[in-house]
Amino acid sequence: MIVFLNGQFVPESEAVVSIFDRSFLYGDGLFETMRIRKGQPFRWTQHLDRLRQGAEFLKIKVPFTGAELQEFVAQLVARNQMSEALLRLTLSRGVGVRGYSPKGANQPFIAMSLHPVLTSDPPVQWKLVTASFRLPANELLAQFKTCNKLPQILARAQADADGADEAVLLNTDGHVVEGASSNLFWVEHETVCTPPLTAGILAGVTRAVVMEFCDKLGIPTRESAIVPAALQKAAGVFLSLSSVGVAECIALDGNPLSRSPLTERVRAAYTQLLGSNC
Amino acid sequence: MIVFLNGQFVPESEAVVSIFDRSFLYGDGLFETMRIRKGQPFRWTQHLDRLRQGAEFLKIKVPFTGAELQEFVAQLVARNQMSEALLRLTLSRGVGVRGYSPKGANQPFIAMSLHPVLTSDPPVQWKLVTASFRLPANELLAQFKTCNKLPQILARAQADADGADEAVLLNTDGHVVEGASSNLFWVEHETVCTPPLTAGILAGVTRAVVMEFCDKLGIPTRESAIVPAALQKAAGVFLSLSSVGVAECIALDGNPLSRSPLTERVRAAYTQLLGSNC
Repeated sequence: MIVFLNGQFVPESEAVVSIFDRSFLYGDGLFETMRIRKGQPFRWTQHLDRLRQGAEFLKIKVPFTGAELQEFVAQLVARNQMSEALLRLTLSRGVGVRGYSPKGANQPFIAMSLHPVLTSDPPVQWKLVTASFRLPANELLAQFKTCNKLPQILARAQADADGADEAVLLNTDGHVVEGASSNLFWVEHETVCTPPLTAGILAGVTRAVVMEFCDKLGIPTRESAIVPAALQKAAGVFLSLSSVGVAECIALDGNPLSRSPLTERVRAAYTQLLGSNC
Repeated sequence: MIVFLNGQFVPESEAVVSIFDRSFLYGDGLFETMRIRKGQPFRWTQHLDRLRQGAEFLKIKVPFTGAELQEFVAQLVARNQMSEALLRLTLSRGVGVRGYSPKGANQPFIAMSLHPVLTSDPPVQWKLVTASFRLPANELLAQFKTCNKLPQILARAQADADGADEAVLLNTDGHVVEGASSNLFWVEHETVCTPPLTAGILAGVTRAVVMEFCDKLGIPTRESAIVPAALQKAAGVFLSLSSVGVAECIALDGNPLSRSPLTERVRAAYTQLLGSNC
């Protein structure tokens, strides 16, 4: 495997960073995970936009232009001969002085690697558990894909332990807000609902794609809050994530969830779009 | 500078980790920062205990015994000839499979490095700002010193931007709970008060030392909540942190804070204890 490390292409074994790197020390960085489909990153612009907005929020300078990065991605795909893959891009603030202050950390860098993609046929049907870790409501930072992912890791470990496919997390207001690595949707009165970004959730690229589709398909959408008991009674529940697209949820904490035909409509539209690679 | 990396002593330039390390990718690790005083780690047992409790919570196996680690610290101090220093110890979950699940990450490792200590004479007097980032209340994870420190980094950056020495953070209940890299204390009716761990704060080793002193000195202590306006009216405010000990706070968001003689009593007791290296 060939990896991209700040302008260089190096073998995986040489893809290393200092133990004084701030992403290693504090998770002081951002990342993006995106599908590579027919050799092209899917929704590249949206992923890059989120990275840039996060970098602006954290005051980390992105060391390459979008065009340069896109060219590096193309080279990475070519060198690894992986035209179907998942791309992980990490932007770290790099090395600074000791302590939390980002002062003096002026050499941020980017690492990129490709990973095998698991395609799912028949469509994904997931069992969920409710995680016992809560996310802070109204947290701006949560919108960005930062390298601080312990609540998500612990939630994911809970799903693993319970034999579930994904864990959903509550925020400090007691609302179910997102999956460990996915955004949450539910169907209510023929409307596709999802928590607003102000609930303290990731501004998921696939979340935005789903909302877009619903508009195109004439399915009404609404941003609103939901408590666990109400989610259990929804007409349908699904998750969105870059690696899978749309995952229908069939159970929550061992109780079956209702299934809505709207889920399949959204999923089919996503699969079609991914095929056409818009 | 010689650095400890999982059983080896290597030059700083060779102290590297894989870009697939989970602490780099997600902040999936823990750390401790402690004073080395006369060649010995100050309050080693307490720091190691917190590390172990955090590791148990995150289900990361600590790859060395306490005795082994203590011997490695002694060697690190000797090799660098730094008997007055700050020690940073990082425990990372290491490399696993792609994604948040910690499954398969079975080779956790420890890195340790020494950093110059800045001794302060006369005693530290700090100006504070209130950070605009809120910590989740009642968050168990917050008790441990994890490698997820972006809220603290952003708070710290705010202090830097405002020319302040430290930032204090609120939790989602609206209470002032801790400093970016310190625990918070205030004086009220001759009593030293501090938020309870359930407020969602770090279980600071120096915080525990301060509570211990107050007991010995016959100063009453109380764990309670405080809102920003009340902190402004406290008889005295101070912070505790390993690198400095006790830091008296003289201003908050540009407004002067009252100063209590109890702060100096606690600070003097800490300095004395550090000198005797108990």
